[in-house]
Amino acid sequence: MRTHELVLQWIEKQLSDGDLTLGGRLPGERTMAEQLQVSRTSVREAVRILEAMGVVRAGVGSGKDAGTVVIAEPGSALGSTLRLHVATRHLPVADIVETRVLLESWAAERATAGVPALGEAADLLDRMDSEQDIDAFLALDARFHVALAEAAGNAVVSAMMASLRGAIENYAGELTENLPDWSATCARLRAEHRAILAAVNNNDGGTAAALVAAHIQGFYKEAGVGSNHAPD
Amino acid sequence: MRTHELVLQWIEKQLSDGDLTLGGRLPGERTMAEQLQVSRTSVREAVRILEAMGVVRAGVGSGKDAGTVVIAEPGSALGSTLRLHVATRHLPVADIVETRVLLESWAAERATAGVPALGEAADLLDRMDSEQDIDAFLALDARFHVALAEAAGNAVVSAMMASLRGAIENYAGELTENLPDWSATCARLRAEHRAILAAVNNNDGGTAAALVAAHIQGFYKEAGVGSNHAPD
Repeated sequence: MRTHELVLQWIEKQLSDGDLTLGGRLPGERTMAEQLQVSRTSVREAVRILEAMGVVRAGVGSGKDAGTVVIAEPGSALGSTLRLHVATRHLPVADIVETRVLLESWAAERATAGVPALGEAADLLDRMDSEQDIDAFLALDARFHVALAEAAGNAVVSAMMASLRGAIENYAGELTENLPDWSATCARLRAEHRAILAAVNNNDGGTAAALVAAHIQGFYKEAGVGSNHAPD
Repeated sequence: MRTHELVLQWIEKQLSDGDLTLGGRLPGERTMAEQLQVSRTSVREAVRILEAMGVVRAGVGSGKDAGTVVIAEPGSALGSTLRLHVATRHLPVADIVETRVLLESWAAERATAGVPALGEAADLLDRMDSEQDIDAFLALDARFHVALAEAAGNAVVSAMMASLRGAIENYAGELTENLPDWSATCARLRAEHRAILAAVNNNDGGTAAALVAAHIQGFYKEAGVGSNHAPD
């Protein structure tokens, strides 16, 4: 095992044993290097990897904000990894879209009326009604889908769904340039979001799942990215 | 942006543009450092992160095997990330199990008879029939599930399914110690695997999906890990 992997293993054990918890701080670089008898370079490499995994945020400055803190941001980290594998052409964009449909349909079917995430989803739709800027609209759109996924109560599905979106967000931005008429698309997306949320709030999971699947597939299809089953 | 992130961004662009492809080699550490005007330490940190993401394998030795090669191993990389977030208690084991059921049911329903992965799955079951060692049996078991997932033809679902299994493989090993009677469990697992594969080969996707869901839930339940919907 290489020395930076020793450091990773030690930190994982601290987390598993509960000696290091969310919001807690890693020991300083020098302390870890001395304790594990490795170079400070190896410690820094391990911390960089944990940052890329969304497990820690590296400290800046001094005082109470100093130090490397344990965080929980798997979605963005998984998204970066998937994005790189999309870049190598190992993971086709169509498979990413199909997996999004699978996870979000499941979440829409599973979500139950009355959970706080659905109130947040409704607020986001109100803000989207008055949002004129395309990028700001798409950012709110992304948050709406995350809120819907969270309403299903499975943290792994939420993280994976966010990661899939992150993996192809560059495409989503470029895709809007392919759209023949943004104001028409935007009106359609608003209406579809309202219908999805209404179905979830009526506890009509089957309808919600079908609507969210059609919504995601429709957007990518209009923008020229086909699913496996509707190549175009 | 920090300097190692500049290196990551540059490599991602090389991949996206097709200037660097699967099986290709990264420029040497010194070359990249000079070209991007960053320290060799920053280059090495970026390469470590890409290794952890399953995007490259760092070179050892010299000659034709030297250099850092572009690979495609998202499953193990995603699994390491998920495992660390399970360690921080951010991702509950029950949510991992539930997501496995979701992805593998979908794959079993989608798989079509006649694809090569199903032939491999059948061979693995034959080998499991004569395998006496528990760890070797579980390793073949894992490969059987991966082959089933691959039969559905979605590389993202396959990678995520493999990652979920990797995230809790430590548990799976410990879980077998909780089982009251391994030989009874093992006989049951063998019979269930045969029934799942038979349903897939009959293109009876509904049955295959139901069987694989019951199979996964049954194993974790017997070993004392509940799903969200059957806490125990």
